[in-house]
Amino acid sequence: MKNTATLLITCPDTKGIVAAIADFLHRNNANILHADQHQDAENKLFLMRVEWDLTDFSVDINHFEQAFSPVAHQFSMQWQLKLSQHKTRVAIMVSQYDHCLADLLHRHKSGELACEIPLVISNHRDTEALVKFYGVDFHHVAINKENKVAAEAAQFKLFDDYKIDLIVLARYMQILSPDFVARYPQQIINIHHSFLPAFIGARPYHRAFERGVKLIGATSHYVTEVLDEGPIIEQGTDRISHRDQVEDLIQKGRDLERVVLSKAVRWHIENRILLYANKTVIFD
Amino acid sequence: MKNTATLLITCPDTKGIVAAIADFLHRNNANILHADQHQDAENKLFLMRVEWDLTDFSVDINHFEQAFSPVAHQFSMQWQLKLSQHKTRVAIMVSQYDHCLADLLHRHKSGELACEIPLVISNHRDTEALVKFYGVDFHHVAINKENKVAAEAAQFKLFDDYKIDLIVLARYMQILSPDFVARYPQQIINIHHSFLPAFIGARPYHRAFERGVKLIGATSHYVTEVLDEGPIIEQGTDRISHRDQVEDLIQKGRDLERVVLSKAVRWHIENRILLYANKTVIFD
Amino acid sequence: MKNTATLLITCPDTKGIVAAIADFLHRNNANILHADQHQDAENKLFLMRVEWDLTDFSVDINHFEQAFSPVAHQFSMQWQLKLSQHKTRVAIMVSQYDHCLADLLHRHKSGELACEIPLVISNHRDTEALVKFYGVDFHHVAINKENKVAAEAAQFKLFDDYKIDLIVLARYMQILSPDFVARYPQQIINIHHSFLPAFIGARPYHRAFERGVKLIGATSHYVTEVLDEGPIIEQGTDRISHRDQVEDLIQKGRDLERVVLSKAVRWHIENRILLYANKTVIFD
Amino acid sequence: MKNTATLLITCPDTKGIVAAIADFLHRNNANILHADQHQDAENKLFLMRVEWDLTDFSVDINHFEQAFSPVAHQFSMQWQLKLSQHKTRVAIMVSQYDHCLADLLHRHKSGELACEIPLVISNHRDTEALVKFYGVDFHHVAINKENKVAAEAAQFKLFDDYKIDLIVLARYMQILSPDFVARYPQQIINIHHSFLPAFIGARPYHRAFERGVKLIGATSHYVTEVLDEGPIIEQGTDRISHRDQVEDLIQKGRDLERVVLSKAVRWHIENRILLYANKTVIFD
Repeated sequence: MKNTATLLITCPDTKGIVAAIADFLHRNNANILHADQHQDAENKLFLMRVEWDLTDFSVDINHFEQAFSPVAHQFSMQWQLKLSQHKTRVAIMVSQYDHCLADLLHRHKSGELACEIPLVISNHRDTEALVKFYGVDFHHVAINKENKVAAEAAQFKLFDDYKIDLIVLARYMQILSPDFVARYPQQIINIHHSFLPAFIGARPYHRAFERGVKLIGATSHYVTEVLDEGPIIEQGTDRISHRDQVEDLIQKGRDLERVVLSKAVRWHIENRILLYANKTVIFD
Repeated sequence: MKNTATLLITCPDTKGIVAAIADFLHRNNANILHADQHQDAENKLFLMRVEWDLTDFSVDINHFEQAFSPVAHQFSMQWQLKLSQHKTRVAIMVSQYDHCLADLLHRHKSGELACEIPLVISNHRDTEALVKFYGVDFHHVAINKENKVAAEAAQFKLFDDYKIDLIVLARYMQILSPDFVARYPQQIINIHHSFLPAFIGARPYHRAFERGVKLIGATSHYVTEVLDEGPIIEQGTDRISHRDQVEDLIQKGRDLERVVLSKAVRWHIENRILLYANKTVIFD
Repeated sequence: MKNTATLLITCPDTKGIVAAIADFLHRNNANILHADQHQDAENKLFLMRVEWDLTDFSVDINHFEQAFSPVAHQFSMQWQLKLSQHKTRVAIMVSQYDHCLADLLHRHKSGELACEIPLVISNHRDTEALVKFYGVDFHHVAINKENKVAAEAAQFKLFDDYKIDLIVLARYMQILSPDFVARYPQQIINIHHSFLPAFIGARPYHRAFERGVKLIGATSHYVTEVLDEGPIIEQGTDRISHRDQVEDLIQKGRDLERVVLSKAVRWHIENRILLYANKTVIFD
Repeated sequence: MKNTATLLITCPDTKGIVAAIADFLHRNNANILHADQHQDAENKLFLMRVEWDLTDFSVDINHFEQAFSPVAHQFSMQWQLKLSQHKTRVAIMVSQYDHCLADLLHRHKSGELACEIPLVISNHRDTEALVKFYGVDFHHVAINKENKVAAEAAQFKLFDDYKIDLIVLARYMQILSPDFVARYPQQIINIHHSFLPAFIGARPYHRAFERGVKLIGATSHYVTEVLDEGPIIEQGTDRISHRDQVEDLIQKGRDLERVVLSKAVRWHIENRILLYANKTVIFD
């Protein structure tokens, strides 16, 4: 089993950053497996992802912060360290459309997603058998206008109980409260069934059909307080024609949604995403 | 040289339409080369395009209306007849970005576009040498807030003088007046440098960059009174990443714009486009 | 439930075919829902698909052949009549990679595939639980060099017992005998994990990686006697880069395979495919 | 005007390479603009591209080799240094199809290609006026079986006279001699009008049409001694259907060829391509 550390860094761009990081890792005998960086000229930002094998690494990983802090301070870095041994714990929320859910569960079982999926929450019972077939706990939390606060409280408790790191909205048709969103910053991924920012809001396939577009799309993004305005992680499009009715758009869209959502989840759990200025950098 | 007629029909959907049209053509000894049809269930509409060789056709094409009118009346058809011998006469309007202009002129010279291009109008002089190299008349019509009415009047006169059937806005950076648009219904094609309806209006690549989308697009459409809301003819998208700056978006966008605009022009001049409900049917 | 008939016709191209068919249908009060045709100029062939509602149709569908035969004879037609009430009965064959199998079963359950899937045959037991979860019969037929004739005989018996119309090879890693292929002409669909005709044969992703291509592909096709040379139904490609290792190609390829195979199956069961000259016409 | 240096490095992968390079650049006050690296696990290779501003760089760039040699020796590096002030000098070779030529000349004039294009060589005269319109020297070198050696000698002389760094075969329909190819290693880029390795050799669109593929492609690659087997730089595909005849494939293919060839040329002149194991790494 892979035993690596991944360091994600954001800091003001200046000379000597790479030299300092590379020197730190080399002095401590790190075997670098992947390194990628990005400089944003407009915002004068430096962003980096570096992953190394822990086998020969001479720093006790529990004391990494102490060892790395001189470098971090010198360049005013924001940084996170992720260990491959700690697998991200994912909860999936779903309503009745189950194609993204089935896809994520199957990919996970096939070894494509290096995470744990201990929990699925739904406001319907339709997907219960499927979830259980894959050996995952299913919790039904009914939600309506009256019980929304209590229902979300029940959801929070489940996330706590299952020690959830990431919440995936796999066609979950309820709008999260501001409190919910604020509680899990950069930890909620949604799939929107349009090529955002086109067709923000409800019934995007119907509106795409009415507008007569020649391509439909899907967008995975982090959820922020403003609906459908969070940082975009991945998008896809597919060609349609006048021969396609709304039902055909919905069907073609399902294939986009599956791929676009699963890529976002994979990149997140592999610690390949950095955020700045409401945008994502994907270190693929 | 090809000598064909193309009939474009729109009518309420009912039984017997195809039988009546096919019978009419067969009785008159038409050799059908292409036929395509579309039924819109929601609007209960029938749309058809049929192209036949005129060599053996027994109706004098100048009296086609008279011969066809019984069928047309029976089914309340709107119809147009297009003859391949009459080539569409195209005027291109352009400002300073000349990539779509150069592309259209080269495609025309290569035989890819079966039209005449006798006229280019620009509010700048930058493209004059290029236009003349391809043997096309270039007219400079300066335009600003003060002279807009007079400038458009000069443009209308040029369209009349050159007997123009179709106006192509190949990155023409002026907004046409309502009078201009009303004068040439379904005869003005524009290229918008975004995946409409995303980024309607000015500077779409800059706004795409700010929003952090992962795909950029281009859209060709007929111009109607509402800016960027006309019927979409063709769209294309291309993938971008965080490594792409605004300049890269603009550069990648140029490749989309060329292809997306040229397809719209080709389909129009080959009489492959029918309009209804602010949408296009493309009989490709 | 839909109650329609679909007529698929191939005949030499000549004048009057459409008129004769449309007249036949109109005389018998058919309500045409979709009609599409194709003329192959090189081979002088006419191909047509027409689907109509049976509600008001005045011909007893059991005596359709008799009613239609004058038209069919006049134009030397090869034709097939398909009824929506008779759902295609599909058997899926699979080895150990189960992503296409899981995808087809889920699409079927979601109502995306208007067929019956009563039978899955595998030379392994890995997929048994998944198949049974979807309520489909699973039969294990071990196969090796020694028992191939007997194993295929057992498979034929299963196809007979389950009245199978279509066999889908969903990553079935055994080569069918010539006898098998000859027995089910145009009734076996395979998914090949390359952009055919590139990388015919085994281990296409490994060979794509070695060659350094920048796109990978997948191809669904009918199985004929020559391996990987049957008529192509659908193809897809996806972009890769030097950052992708063989494992990444395999993973990206799975998404292509799912979509490309499921489209082929859907078009087949919706009677949208006509074959000629080792090619497919897809009436979409 | 940009004044940067780009260092391209290939060496056995081992610990400390990045630290050594970053330290070297930092000690010499380089302002790094872009850095990208790739590790090939299978071949245990490390490849890097780093570009920095020369303004504050403390090493005299004419003595770079001397300054860098300790690092280079320590890690057994193969390396090249490229200066943005030295623009690549490109010769285009073309026969009669001029779409790629016109595209490259227009992109160059628009500032999209940061190179010089002083020379076009053709075995026909068709493109002479176009070439001269763009202010480029045109040389006609007739070639046939009898005069091939002499004709190529004349071409070599032209390349010498014009100090050519890169030869672009923009639909040049002659096979280069082994001597020609050997003379310009990694300096000849070709566009092949198929998705290699499918349809190697002549008339790929015709063979694609016969095979009934559903996608066509184009491939840009470096020319090596084995025809169509050189390292692939870029590929593209576009969807076709049974409605497309050979002429349509050719027309759609032209759009692919333009984009795919121009990307290869741009990446080459921007020093973004490294070669190993008959593959390309594109540092985009």
